[in-house]
Amino acid sequence: MNTIELLMQHRSIRKYKPQAIEQNTLNRILEAGIRGSNTGNMQIYSIVVTQDAERKKELAKFHFGQKMVEDAAAVVTVCVDINRYHKWCVLRNAGTAYDNFLWFATGVVDATIATQNICVAAEAEGLGFCYLGTVLYNAPEIAEYLKLPKGVVPVTTITMGYPDEAPELSERLPLNGVVHYEEYHNYSNEDIDAIFADTENLTLSKEMVKINGTENLAQIFTQKRYKKADNIFMSQKLLKFLHDSDFMNNE
Amino acid sequence: MNTIELLMQHRSIRKYKPQAIEQNTLNRILEAGIRGSNTGNMQIYSIVVTQDAERKKELAKFHFGQKMVEDAAAVVTVCVDINRYHKWCVLRNAGTAYDNFLWFATGVVDATIATQNICVAAEAEGLGFCYLGTVLYNAPEIAEYLKLPKGVVPVTTITMGYPDEAPELSERLPLNGVVHYEEYHNYSNEDIDAIFADTENLTLSKEMVKINGTENLAQIFTQKRYKKADNIFMSQKLLKFLHDSDFMNNE
Repeated sequence: MNTIELLMQHRSIRKYKPQAIEQNTLNRILEAGIRGSNTGNMQIYSIVVTQDAERKKELAKFHFGQKMVEDAAAVVTVCVDINRYHKWCVLRNAGTAYDNFLWFATGVVDATIATQNICVAAEAEGLGFCYLGTVLYNAPEIAEYLKLPKGVVPVTTITMGYPDEAPELSERLPLNGVVHYEEYHNYSNEDIDAIFADTENLTLSKEMVKINGTENLAQIFTQKRYKKADNIFMSQKLLKFLHDSDFMNNE
Repeated sequence: MNTIELLMQHRSIRKYKPQAIEQNTLNRILEAGIRGSNTGNMQIYSIVVTQDAERKKELAKFHFGQKMVEDAAAVVTVCVDINRYHKWCVLRNAGTAYDNFLWFATGVVDATIATQNICVAAEAEGLGFCYLGTVLYNAPEIAEYLKLPKGVVPVTTITMGYPDEAPELSERLPLNGVVHYEEYHNYSNEDIDAIFADTENLTLSKEMVKINGTENLAQIFTQKRYKKADNIFMSQKLLKFLHDSDFMNNE
């Protein structure tokens, strides 16, 4: 399979065979991760790999108990990390300059580039993976459990292992619904109806609406899955953690 | 070349041939981008493609006048976008829930996953690319120029085109310098010396130290390239823009 086909055939995998990942394979995947572009070649990220069965079980608690965290061969948590870079700067009498919001934002981009390279490489090696958005909800708890020092904030987590399922390809919005040429063309109500029509008309979507007892698909998101009150709570928690982690020294 | 080799051989390309990208090729690359994982399949990102010569020249101003912005066949700006999703939610009587910091952070991850898939696909198609960190410095100006509405914040920009250079592979820190097993093992001074040794001993690094008149490589970063005062200024500017863009309604 060529690379374009590989990217086009991506499915998130949540069920895994009880099969470990060989160290050589894992090394290739991680090396592909760190070959990714990064700002100033500063590599302000760290990658924490959890493979121990007991520790995966503990980690699963911070990810809403999702079973795939236990079942995956490896749980990979990628963190924005200015701790290592600052240690180097201090040792070289260069001071510190990156404990602020710009470098958190920059670090999220760089950590995610590394993560996505890891994901693409994993699929190329016959593995499957799934991103866990819960890492941003429980970043402080995960940081404590993984013994992350100040200046290290987990921003992506993936589970990874040999697939034990073969799900359908997910629907995506049509390309012209998310791509703009030259400048952003804001959406009319008719545009929105057209862009979301296929997703709303999926049998799966209709079943979900029935099960959730909402009027439509959008309400499942705002009333059930990702509610405003929860989002506000998580936003405050995450911002507080950025303060505590020395990423908000912006004065 | 297989996918792992492709990822391992990545170089950032800053010089491009004056050759446009065929629409079919561009479509394949962008489709590969949106096949990437994303939170809840909500696709809270938009992709703005700039190909017009005059507009690339204008856009270059916001990227410190870097010539590659003008010379690239396409400049791709990927934005966190809750505008489209909220329009859909409002039309479906579902309210809005994502105008807060959690969803900015989530959106940066999702926008970057899409961007990195675009990058990998571009290389698979024989193109080269380079990330421009300047997008986070001048997000408000870029947003105004690209006519981004509230709720849309540019977070990654790449230049893309057919390579007209073949640079050396960049140095990276050794894998064991950035990967931790089971938990984070904080770095001793000796660890730091060992991890950064190869980078510091590169001929290129030594030349840069000479040119910059600093004592060492670390000081080039903190005293010349990415200075604390600049970082603080940019942090404040970016946070203000997040407020103005409706991503900081955290109460």
